[in-house]
Amino acid sequence: MKAIILKDFGGPEMMEFAEVDTPSPTGDQILIKVINASVNRPDVIQRQGNYPPVPGDSEILGLEVAGTVEAVGADATRFKLGDRVVALVGGGGYAEYALAYEAHAMTIPDAVSCEQAACICETYITAYLNLFMLAELEGKKSVLIHGGGGGVATSAIQLCRALTPQTEIIVTASSGKLERVAGQGANHVIDYREQNFAEEVRRITEKRGVDVILDHIGAKYLESNMKSLALAGTLMLIGVMGGIKAELNLAAMMVKRQRIIGSVLRSRPVLEKAAIIDQFETAVMPLFASGAIEPLIDARFPLGQAAEAHRLMERGGHFGKIVLQNQE
Amino acid sequence: MKAIILKDFGGPEMMEFAEVDTPSPTGDQILIKVINASVNRPDVIQRQGNYPPVPGDSEILGLEVAGTVEAVGADATRFKLGDRVVALVGGGGYAEYALAYEAHAMTIPDAVSCEQAACICETYITAYLNLFMLAELEGKKSVLIHGGGGGVATSAIQLCRALTPQTEIIVTASSGKLERVAGQGANHVIDYREQNFAEEVRRITEKRGVDVILDHIGAKYLESNMKSLALAGTLMLIGVMGGIKAELNLAAMMVKRQRIIGSVLRSRPVLEKAAIIDQFETAVMPLFASGAIEPLIDARFPLGQAAEAHRLMERGGHFGKIVLQNQE
Repeated sequence: MKAIILKDFGGPEMMEFAEVDTPSPTGDQILIKVINASVNRPDVIQRQGNYPPVPGDSEILGLEVAGTVEAVGADATRFKLGDRVVALVGGGGYAEYALAYEAHAMTIPDAVSCEQAACICETYITAYLNLFMLAELEGKKSVLIHGGGGGVATSAIQLCRALTPQTEIIVTASSGKLERVAGQGANHVIDYREQNFAEEVRRITEKRGVDVILDHIGAKYLESNMKSLALAGTLMLIGVMGGIKAELNLAAMMVKRQRIIGSVLRSRPVLEKAAIIDQFETAVMPLFASGAIEPLIDARFPLGQAAEAHRLMERGGHFGKIVLQNQE
Repeated sequence: MKAIILKDFGGPEMMEFAEVDTPSPTGDQILIKVINASVNRPDVIQRQGNYPPVPGDSEILGLEVAGTVEAVGADATRFKLGDRVVALVGGGGYAEYALAYEAHAMTIPDAVSCEQAACICETYITAYLNLFMLAELEGKKSVLIHGGGGGVATSAIQLCRALTPQTEIIVTASSGKLERVAGQGANHVIDYREQNFAEEVRRITEKRGVDVILDHIGAKYLESNMKSLALAGTLMLIGVMGGIKAELNLAAMMVKRQRIIGSVLRSRPVLEKAAIIDQFETAVMPLFASGAIEPLIDARFPLGQAAEAHRLMERGGHFGKIVLQNQE
């Protein structure tokens, strides 16, 4: 099969469209004929050599695929050949065929296209896991979501709007994206370059602070995040793009009964991911099936032009997902 | 009534045994004729002027009392006059009579003395809330409890032994208390002055780390605590005796999916405390009633000698609770 492989770690020019062995499903795995895969920020970091796959997973980039079931392992019982499925994979998405555990795959609802489906797993599951399963946002008063233009953030805004409509959604974004972020359902948008978000959050919430923060920045935001949190609030830490180490005021955290929860999706054990996907399928997939929410797609590239897709992501001007497509 | 009042914030010499107005119960409050009250570390900090009571609560020291119901407010229905009760109070314990919300009081089991009962609320509820309700320790592999000689730590060890017997209990203590801590049910005791506890925890757990840490030290232990935590482990932060601010490695915390939860009992809203006490009464009080666990008492003082009790606590040589008693 054809796949994108890396000549070495480095820039997009290291990505090569090459011939590799087609993998075979064993045990409870299925082989998916990939129609679409999507590009996520971790793919860029992996390409740069800073985010190795979990041992045993494919070295090929790509964390989510949509397509049809091409073959199944001896113990795989959930799908039959030809079924339209979407799957979260530990790697291997940038290819014509990809392996997935059957418990990490979901049936694509009839009303959803393959290219939309390819945008569901990584960002929506990340948003759902962190906001709803771990931070228990449902029914709470307010949430702060950083990086409004990013895939996880737009997914998070949509999920909050649909699953906890009374929750006030505050989002930080760069000036060029403010209106589009508001259009996704944010109640308040903060221009993080021009405004001090902790002050804005205090003003918007009348000094109460927010119940939950979804943060991928880390060190640079830690102090302001803790100031933005309400009593008994939870900071979900899902990235460290703004640095690794920061000073934490433990006394304030204790007295305010606040929580910090570190979270990643990719390295969780297979069974844990299966349980997350099971809950996600029940709670969220019907929203896609009914059209209540819809993935935002910014751009499409043939698989062979994955390097161009990476360049677009690294320029950062996109709004919504970047999707790869295999030629028929 | 007689009570201990403070001439000013400062040392034990500021505590005076004086005549004050007996309070009257209103609403769902009850008035308890205090037979025993116990001394807790926060009382010392409050006496020094660094831990003010929640507005509306008594300014008198003392966070837990045991005695008999002397009067009830118009809306109080749970107890009748003369009932033996133990209660968590926001203050007012160092007195002949103390007010409590009826939902913060529990019936003293027949087999439990008043002086034992006076040792139940502050430390056992703190240990239960943090380890079992918040950190969900039940069934997990291992726990690290700091400050083995302290009231919360000994309560925590007993509760772990009784409620999650398969969990490995690792405790830090000073050299003079190691054997007595082991006697309470700890599986491993680390001399925190002589040994590096993070290294010892790694050795004992064969590099896995512990699932939960109960910590009242804060800044000084943060780095070692995070190193001692297993994947997906929880650090319960219930005190900052070792400093307030410390550097946190957010990348490690994220990748290991670890949590830090700040927690205090005293300043929680009345209804929240009621819910905690309700759960505690169901899960833990039967253990006292059956004699499965028993509070450790180190020393008893007449209420009028509360200053002596504080001097003993500040010297730090005690093992178990220090109890005050009212003369009949």
